[in-house]
Amino acid sequence: MIRNIVYERGKATLLDQRALPALERYIEVTTPQEMSQAIRSLSVRGAPAIGIAAAYGLCLAADGALSHEQGPKPGKSVRRAAEELKRARPTAVNLFYAVDRMLARLDAVSPCEPEHLRSALVAEADAIRDEEAAACRAIGEHLLALLEPGSGVLTHCNAGGIATVRYGTALAPLLLGAERGIQFKVYADETRPLLQGARLTAWELNRAGVDVTVICDSMAAQIMREGRVQAVLVGCDRVAANGDTANKIGTYGLAVLSKHHGIPFYVAAPSSTIDPQTETGEGIVIEERAPEEITQSFGIRTAPENVRAYNPAFDVTPGDALISAIVTEHGIFRPPYRTSIASLIHETNRESGNR
Amino acid sequence: MIRNIVYERGKATLLDQRALPALERYIEVTTPQEMSQAIRSLSVRGAPAIGIAAAYGLCLAADGALSHEQGPKPGKSVRRAAEELKRARPTAVNLFYAVDRMLARLDAVSPCEPEHLRSALVAEADAIRDEEAAACRAIGEHLLALLEPGSGVLTHCNAGGIATVRYGTALAPLLLGAERGIQFKVYADETRPLLQGARLTAWELNRAGVDVTVICDSMAAQIMREGRVQAVLVGCDRVAANGDTANKIGTYGLAVLSKHHGIPFYVAAPSSTIDPQTETGEGIVIEERAPEEITQSFGIRTAPENVRAYNPAFDVTPGDALISAIVTEHGIFRPPYRTSIASLIHETNRESGNR
Repeated sequence: MIRNIVYERGKATLLDQRALPALERYIEVTTPQEMSQAIRSLSVRGAPAIGIAAAYGLCLAADGALSHEQGPKPGKSVRRAAEELKRARPTAVNLFYAVDRMLARLDAVSPCEPEHLRSALVAEADAIRDEEAAACRAIGEHLLALLEPGSGVLTHCNAGGIATVRYGTALAPLLLGAERGIQFKVYADETRPLLQGARLTAWELNRAGVDVTVICDSMAAQIMREGRVQAVLVGCDRVAANGDTANKIGTYGLAVLSKHHGIPFYVAAPSSTIDPQTETGEGIVIEERAPEEITQSFGIRTAPENVRAYNPAFDVTPGDALISAIVTEHGIFRPPYRTSIASLIHETNRESGNR
Repeated sequence: MIRNIVYERGKATLLDQRALPALERYIEVTTPQEMSQAIRSLSVRGAPAIGIAAAYGLCLAADGALSHEQGPKPGKSVRRAAEELKRARPTAVNLFYAVDRMLARLDAVSPCEPEHLRSALVAEADAIRDEEAAACRAIGEHLLALLEPGSGVLTHCNAGGIATVRYGTALAPLLLGAERGIQFKVYADETRPLLQGARLTAWELNRAGVDVTVICDSMAAQIMREGRVQAVLVGCDRVAANGDTANKIGTYGLAVLSKHHGIPFYVAAPSSTIDPQTETGEGIVIEERAPEEITQSFGIRTAPENVRAYNPAFDVTPGDALISAIVTEHGIFRPPYRTSIASLIHETNRESGNR
């Protein structure tokens, strides 16, 4: 089991995903500024992992305030850090979800003794982490029921344990399956420009004993045509109220190809990635990253000096038209998503009301 | 103007496409073995360029035999070299077309005085080159008529001058347009694994003053969705009698995406790439290249050591279903391709009969 985010008082230890697969390296962050930088630079990536990291980043803000008596009060430090963490990346809703939930807890316990406030924040961050872990496992069980043992599965980017906790989301059925002796033939899109599929998904699946083959993104259509793929599994960064789904660039194209080949296209989405405030995909901000990620891959210049590159980091897949099912910890949701997601939200609200 | 293949007695000078865009470097080859190696290693690539290079490779075989009186006779050297050159790469039909045409010329002039035989071979190789150049220009004119000035054009891999001669095939309308002040907004797929789009197409178009933006292959669907693309232009390595077209891996997926977005998908095909002997795409051998092209891109390991990769170098796009037009030097051909290509073959045969 990989422990990608470990918090203790005054310090968080993070698996540095940028160093994989060459190195399994860990970095330590001690301030919310450093945590924000770790998210921005993609040392921590994956929507649920970003949310958990941000929550612990706020714990670090409280820790810092408690250790400096002359500085601002913990509550003020945490609120200031929340603003900074929210600006780290724009697309994943988990970041906003986790930070807002931490702020709500802060409000609920304020004013109070600083040490008590800190404990409440750590308990809330732990709860976010544990709920994500439980959601991943449940998603894995639901997806496992949709897949034929031994069949071919294509995945894009990395929606594994290191992007979340423990089992991951889209990789959960594959990792759970491996534990139970149910094997799949997995194809991992390398996922340009940052190669999360080749670097991270292949590493994680291989480590867990899953049969994995890396392909270039441009080969997905060909392996579908060759009959090697019976299902496509992807994670997501945000799902709108109508099922439109933002995920790593290339996901939308894969969904079109899946439709053309009659292959089911499944999105694994813990309910923390579902954003009922966003009506449709039109409302999702797509992060555009530096062109150098394309033109200077891994320090090597692959395009001429003065040539432009366009680098949208995400795309939006229309839910009803192209997504066969959105699988959450609460079960399998089908189109029309406006109705099925509304029932899911109702369910989630009822649960959190009971908590 | 880039001179990618220049032959003189005993020596051919080749633009080393592997060094681009960092270096405009030329290599000299003096034997058919070296020419075969230059093709195999992709110093020379692009279906028409491979054919021209192979033709001059046979001239080098004759040169070698003429300079060594004790060795085998020129005719025998050329035939032996022909076998080796044909094994250099399996997919592009131009290689076989050019070699067979050179052998036919050899047969036509044999037996004869060795110096005369050499001249005949050089004249035939020059003719192949000049016909390809004329075909490229004609293809450019036909394609230019299909495109709206100022519109967005997406291309894949490199079907430019360095893959052919002078104007190239799919890039011909863009390069011809630039000469006439007709600009397009061109998007070049980087084209993993060997990045011919980022390295070569971007270099060639930028050098000619064409507005070009590099994207990752996985971004094509997104830019189509954003309305940035009004036509897709690709070259080809072989077209079967029914219009099924082999081209760089990723082409088939692009064709599916084009269809989904209602964007015309054009294949630029000098008639030397049309193979009436191959009934359908099923009959085209797809070269599978080393997995290290994917897992160790540019000397950097991007996937874990013990993970497999699958690396088909080409795919086949079904003609009638997905190709809007196949554009040759003889004009614009539309589905159903079995009929339109048959008329093209008839035309070509009549012409070569008249030659």
